[in-house]
Amino acid sequence: MSSMRLKIDINSDVGESFGNFKVGHDAEIMPYLSSANVACGFHAGDPVIMERTLKLAKRHKVKVGAHPGLPDLVGFGRRSMSLSREEVQNLVIYQVGALLAFAKAVGIDVQHVKPHGALYNAGAHDEAYAKPIVEAVHAVNPDLVLFTLAGSKMAEIAAKAGLRVAHEVFADRAYNPDGSLVSRNRAGAIVEDAAAVSRRAIKMVKERMVNTVDSQALVKFDKLHTICVHGDTVNAVELVKALRKAFAAANVEVSPVSTFV
Amino acid sequence: MSSMRLKIDINSDVGESFGNFKVGHDAEIMPYLSSANVACGFHAGDPVIMERTLKLAKRHKVKVGAHPGLPDLVGFGRRSMSLSREEVQNLVIYQVGALLAFAKAVGIDVQHVKPHGALYNAGAHDEAYAKPIVEAVHAVNPDLVLFTLAGSKMAEIAAKAGLRVAHEVFADRAYNPDGSLVSRNRAGAIVEDAAAVSRRAIKMVKERMVNTVDSQALVKFDKLHTICVHGDTVNAVELVKALRKAFAAANVEVSPVSTFV
Amino acid sequence: MSSMRLKIDINSDVGESFGNFKVGHDAEIMPYLSSANVACGFHAGDPVIMERTLKLAKRHKVKVGAHPGLPDLVGFGRRSMSLSREEVQNLVIYQVGALLAFAKAVGIDVQHVKPHGALYNAGAHDEAYAKPIVEAVHAVNPDLVLFTLAGSKMAEIAAKAGLRVAHEVFADRAYNPDGSLVSRNRAGAIVEDAAAVSRRAIKMVKERMVNTVDSQALVKFDKLHTICVHGDTVNAVELVKALRKAFAAANVEVSPVSTFV
Amino acid sequence: MSSMRLKIDINSDVGESFGNFKVGHDAEIMPYLSSANVACGFHAGDPVIMERTLKLAKRHKVKVGAHPGLPDLVGFGRRSMSLSREEVQNLVIYQVGALLAFAKAVGIDVQHVKPHGALYNAGAHDEAYAKPIVEAVHAVNPDLVLFTLAGSKMAEIAAKAGLRVAHEVFADRAYNPDGSLVSRNRAGAIVEDAAAVSRRAIKMVKERMVNTVDSQALVKFDKLHTICVHGDTVNAVELVKALRKAFAAANVEVSPVSTFV
Repeated sequence: MSSMRLKIDINSDVGESFGNFKVGHDAEIMPYLSSANVACGFHAGDPVIMERTLKLAKRHKVKVGAHPGLPDLVGFGRRSMSLSREEVQNLVIYQVGALLAFAKAVGIDVQHVKPHGALYNAGAHDEAYAKPIVEAVHAVNPDLVLFTLAGSKMAEIAAKAGLRVAHEVFADRAYNPDGSLVSRNRAGAIVEDAAAVSRRAIKMVKERMVNTVDSQALVKFDKLHTICVHGDTVNAVELVKALRKAFAAANVEVSPVSTFV
Repeated sequence: MSSMRLKIDINSDVGESFGNFKVGHDAEIMPYLSSANVACGFHAGDPVIMERTLKLAKRHKVKVGAHPGLPDLVGFGRRSMSLSREEVQNLVIYQVGALLAFAKAVGIDVQHVKPHGALYNAGAHDEAYAKPIVEAVHAVNPDLVLFTLAGSKMAEIAAKAGLRVAHEVFADRAYNPDGSLVSRNRAGAIVEDAAAVSRRAIKMVKERMVNTVDSQALVKFDKLHTICVHGDTVNAVELVKALRKAFAAANVEVSPVSTFV
Repeated sequence: MSSMRLKIDINSDVGESFGNFKVGHDAEIMPYLSSANVACGFHAGDPVIMERTLKLAKRHKVKVGAHPGLPDLVGFGRRSMSLSREEVQNLVIYQVGALLAFAKAVGIDVQHVKPHGALYNAGAHDEAYAKPIVEAVHAVNPDLVLFTLAGSKMAEIAAKAGLRVAHEVFADRAYNPDGSLVSRNRAGAIVEDAAAVSRRAIKMVKERMVNTVDSQALVKFDKLHTICVHGDTVNAVELVKALRKAFAAANVEVSPVSTFV
Repeated sequence: MSSMRLKIDINSDVGESFGNFKVGHDAEIMPYLSSANVACGFHAGDPVIMERTLKLAKRHKVKVGAHPGLPDLVGFGRRSMSLSREEVQNLVIYQVGALLAFAKAVGIDVQHVKPHGALYNAGAHDEAYAKPIVEAVHAVNPDLVLFTLAGSKMAEIAAKAGLRVAHEVFADRAYNPDGSLVSRNRAGAIVEDAAAVSRRAIKMVKERMVNTVDSQALVKFDKLHTICVHGDTVNAVELVKALRKAFAAANVEVSPVSTFV
């Protein structure tokens, strides 16, 4: 019964270079993704990089999404900032709009929106960020899929607002018992071993759970649609290849999230 | 015969504040405009300002356009920069896209694109800027009207590419004999007297000509659709009121440029 | 006994324009200050503005200080950001250094450092911000006076580190019972009436206390050296004139803080 | 006669990372330099990077200089901009001042100033840029050595103003017959072969000449004190090692420029 076959989307952040400043390995990683989150100029990315990244995604038939971040280039959008709802809503509209225009120019569709870094984390847990993010996406295009931390408050808010939601897990990031990600500043926050990442990914997809950072407990996921590999980790290309192989061996189908949420 | 009645569009730059930094008198000037050029975040404007500006325009039923500028906030986009065609094209796509998203969110259409400052001037005269600007607008939405200096090279290039073009004149700026604007750095570059501005405007619209800065010659315009009042001049509101009055007295109809180009 | 005469420093933030974006009324307010806090380019100010502001201060023989802010121009440095100690320390060194160079070029000394906005507030109460701010000032020039909220933790830390400290009060801002400032987002946070501001200022200086926002309690100050008038409030010039008059009438001497701390 | 031994300074641009964005190989290249040009935050570099870079230079006893650039992060300061003299002078003062403060904090001296990219090129040839650069350096500290293109107009202007000047050559950049550098946009502008770079360097230092890009002519240098290896070329570390070896073999002494200009 093919309908019973498990499906998963593999996403990664791309287009995070900025002018002369190179980040990531977009050309190498793109062929292994089903969804690509494209930086939109606030935490990373610039107009030239955005256009080139969309052309690259088009070449590999990878679905793209906007990856809006906080206005903090030097902090790479990873430092939390105290913003008003009006500020949050409009910085999302702005960045998603910019990406939509490049998609139009390049001749592809935009599939999704995934907030970046501190905006992602704030959105996952804090209504004051989640609501304006959801409203922004809805206002620009209610057909866009919103990526958010699996089981987060934002997933609820987005679903209530009528958005399609992709519940996301991180095979290369350690989890706290409450389902949040261990902060990047703490040791063990990032898992780099390809075999470990693959094992975690398979367990996540097949059993809908992951061990917490201290292995004392399990985080369980009610829904799980997409798995992220961070494009700026040293061995990101290796990780995404390992994931592809592990999913194939486990008979899990890799497919863009919009085809099954 | 109503079809013989002269028509003119009055445009002004709005939304040029930035966070806590206030520029212009948008609320006061908006009611007198037929078209408003909205800054898009590179030379001025920010996401919150953009949304508020579009709501203001909507309230007054003023048509809006994107007003993309060079990435030079401290220079207000008025300092020429040496950019590649790829850079020019993509910074226009980016900024127009951002505005389109706000227009969608606010529930209005975008009528036009008017490049700002040094980008406007470079585009008017230099093919290396004009072509990527035209291509950018065409790629995002070929129905957008492109504002450019009356009689400029960009007008030609845009028309050839199939874009609707609004030939623009400046009632408050002095002209060189070749039809270019006198640099802001030179004395007499800006005309602030409301009566003088009105007289010039009427002559421009009725006779399609204007005296040059040294009054030794006339600049003639083959086509002329829109007249600009700079929103950041001290008495911008007075000027635009004077223009409205002068056009009414001269039986010139003020109308958004998209209705007659 | 002249030594018994009360002394107070009047300070205000200046140089907070940015390129074409004008903020404040520096030329009007400068003559009434004894100390001027000069924005250093991160939350406001740019190199040209900085040099002009120092020349203006020199002309009026007003002592200047660096006014470093968070790297958040669109938020005017008023949005709290989560920064590492290394980031805080170095952004202070950077901005103070820039101002020192302009002071050298213009031929004046720098008297003090006053952190701006969210950096000021974080520094006042949070050791993780106070310590790197103090270390930065000490590392660049241990003779600089550090301005901080009267009675704050940073005052203690700075004194322990051997810095001269100016305990600061705000005549135009409402106080919480714990001595912190009422957030700008709340009604009643800012006092604009000149008579009220003067009354508060006199009570602060003479009695070392101020009523809290709800008038249920008093905030008392052990030490108090400088009083701030915000340069970007509408009637800042009026306020500072009123303060000068009130202090003269009350026989309080207005003098740069470095002459008496 | 040891006094006859030829001396040369080897300089490279360092500290050109920005937050999460890594550029260059500072740790690898630093040990081979005698002078390091430290980015100051406008075209590259940020406060944290600046402090770390100075500590690295201190560890290797490498002399440091400020490397101020145009305010164009996305263009890496390589796109020419039309700036006023006041703007040029003050952006140099600002950036040099920031570096001086870090040097003070870290406990080293600043040896020199080398303008970056488009500012370097504009300064070399255009008095409207050269004069305010020279005045800025002079105003901040007249003991600083100014690096400029060997034989350029800025060298003359700086010497007349009383600054010590380091005439600079580029072993890894092709020359036009007039002594200017071939634009980076043109093929052959950059020489990457280590043997070729070494041969060119030895000829430059020993014979004070270099073949032009078309090899039809020679550029001759009256004075020549420092040779640059670009830190962001792929094989920068290889090049600088090759230079060290070639100079040792040719009995040319590598020494910080301040020891002999």
